[in-house]
Amino acid sequence: MRQTSTGSGPAKVEDLPSPALIVDLDAFERNVAAAADLVRGSGTNLRPHVKTHRTPGLAIRQLGPHAHGVTCATVGEAEAMVAAGIDDVLLANEIVSPGKADRLARLGRDAQVAVAVDSQYGVDVIAGAAARARVEIAVLVDVDVGLARCGVAGPDEAVALGRVVAGTPRLRLRGTMGYEGRLRAANAERGQRINQAEVGLAAVHRAFAAAGLPCQVVSSGGTSTFLQAVADPDITEIQAGTYALMETDLAGLGLPFVPALTVSAMVISRSEGRVVLDAGRKSISCDYGPPTPLPPEATLTAINEEHTTLRWDGELPGFGARVELRPLHVRLTFNLHDEVWLARGDKVIDRLPVVARGRSA
Amino acid sequence: MRQTSTGSGPAKVEDLPSPALIVDLDAFERNVAAAADLVRGSGTNLRPHVKTHRTPGLAIRQLGPHAHGVTCATVGEAEAMVAAGIDDVLLANEIVSPGKADRLARLGRDAQVAVAVDSQYGVDVIAGAAARARVEIAVLVDVDVGLARCGVAGPDEAVALGRVVAGTPRLRLRGTMGYEGRLRAANAERGQRINQAEVGLAAVHRAFAAAGLPCQVVSSGGTSTFLQAVADPDITEIQAGTYALMETDLAGLGLPFVPALTVSAMVISRSEGRVVLDAGRKSISCDYGPPTPLPPEATLTAINEEHTTLRWDGELPGFGARVELRPLHVRLTFNLHDEVWLARGDKVIDRLPVVARGRSA
Repeated sequence: MRQTSTGSGPAKVEDLPSPALIVDLDAFERNVAAAADLVRGSGTNLRPHVKTHRTPGLAIRQLGPHAHGVTCATVGEAEAMVAAGIDDVLLANEIVSPGKADRLARLGRDAQVAVAVDSQYGVDVIAGAAARARVEIAVLVDVDVGLARCGVAGPDEAVALGRVVAGTPRLRLRGTMGYEGRLRAANAERGQRINQAEVGLAAVHRAFAAAGLPCQVVSSGGTSTFLQAVADPDITEIQAGTYALMETDLAGLGLPFVPALTVSAMVISRSEGRVVLDAGRKSISCDYGPPTPLPPEATLTAINEEHTTLRWDGELPGFGARVELRPLHVRLTFNLHDEVWLARGDKVIDRLPVVARGRSA
Repeated sequence: MRQTSTGSGPAKVEDLPSPALIVDLDAFERNVAAAADLVRGSGTNLRPHVKTHRTPGLAIRQLGPHAHGVTCATVGEAEAMVAAGIDDVLLANEIVSPGKADRLARLGRDAQVAVAVDSQYGVDVIAGAAARARVEIAVLVDVDVGLARCGVAGPDEAVALGRVVAGTPRLRLRGTMGYEGRLRAANAERGQRINQAEVGLAAVHRAFAAAGLPCQVVSSGGTSTFLQAVADPDITEIQAGTYALMETDLAGLGLPFVPALTVSAMVISRSEGRVVLDAGRKSISCDYGPPTPLPPEATLTAINEEHTTLRWDGELPGFGARVELRPLHVRLTFNLHDEVWLARGDKVIDRLPVVARGRSA
């Protein structure tokens, strides 16, 4: 695969421009290895979801014997991954715009491309693009397994749409997918929703078999349901992404993953018991809550667009000192940055462009 | 000033890529004119804050007889503005990194540059950069007028730091600035905080005069305090930015501004009483709350990274139909997009690059 580093730069984290997005490479590699351990021998593959970081240079590091390809949420992400040499992409999302479908189909010249559909309209759009690009596109019928978002309602609708796909030139029916949503609170509802999703996908799997429709792929699961997906006999691939960087609100689920992402900021103002950093909501997403400062002396009291204010117990750090903040939400934070730095301890190893940042269209 | 349009594109909003960030140009121009009406004859100038949109092509449209220059929050914003031909920038933020100070000082070769300081350390860093670049940099002493973020504590500290600035080669003391923060809730605390800020700045103004320090500039205020700042005899320039695009939570403050920003998304999935759009938290900031769909039939029920789910009362829109969403927070939403489209009604007028998007470092 192609080189995706942007080249050399500062040797130490403290010399990086501020704010800087930083992946702890030891932690990242530990997470990738832990995920491989989980899927190895389970009969399930991992298809890392790259919406987490939109960074081909990280996606490449997540592939291996049980992770041949990636999952994408947008055509722009898929384009970035194929341009970096990844030759197997699933767009786990609905495409109904001919322009986007044409872009996706063109990727079919360099990569195996699969896409989700939940409507006849979507099938027609994808088929038209496949014909124009003279490629074949694999299709998964998307089923709503409890999220109430995209997806057909159940096995009967899935079989009906699967038959349409199977009868459409240049489309190859591969199976089904379903996403149960973000299930992070370790409560009773969580177990019920995971069970509902598993039952829903198993029913579609059986219905496809009964109808004589191919169903080699049953794609589902995220980091929050990783352990359940590995144990599910129907699921053939897991669309987890966050596992590689981890998020703090996943800590109660018994997952073998550790936090790997921080934003390094700089002290720009100091006063009695208070320091102000040069990173705020434009560098750290607070959609799901504020970040956590790593120094034990620090407590976040406010975060604005360009500033984070900390109460500081003990001797204040000097002007220009670096302070690391752990974002609560990895995916939305990556989407604010054009580059990410890989570090081991204080040492900067590499700089990667977040190629698909902002590529939602 | 230089051409900042990126050229021609689709002629109609419905033909834009989805999601697309859209400025209603009629509303934007109405807001710019209303702001000019407010400052005209008041003795106060407007210095539009470009952190709102980070877009030189919009900033240029906000300048005029009573708005000669812009306010920036980061060096990267200032670089983008000067590169577009704007020759008067205030960096209303603390700079303590020599690398950033050098970048700022280099702008002093093409533009009048002013910067805030709240520490001797900061003065030394700015002075060193000014000497290296062989330019003069104007300085405002930043005062904490109630936000408890950056700024010196009060008039005595301001005078002490002002004397340091006045005695430093290549720095030119111009006055003071203070930011009272986001005051949007129309309650009693709001009035108290505005009053506290006004009293605080007036005290610094008087103290500078008594100490024989120059104080031609007293820079303060935002959109939420626009009317109070115009009426304040001490304030010489208002750092408002949001006024040009407006935000819905400012509606209760009696301001003459109207909302001008939307995100146009596309219907990608439909089911009983529900449609799903292809825009989510990666295109519309939800840091301060979710967006509002413009069609009266639509009620937002969920917003995820790439999807917005709407309950739809009445006949569902077709696949591919466009739906506009009004973001609650303009500034964080702009910072997610690389380009913004200007439209009058359904007609697309221009496309502007959001040049300083992501330029927090």
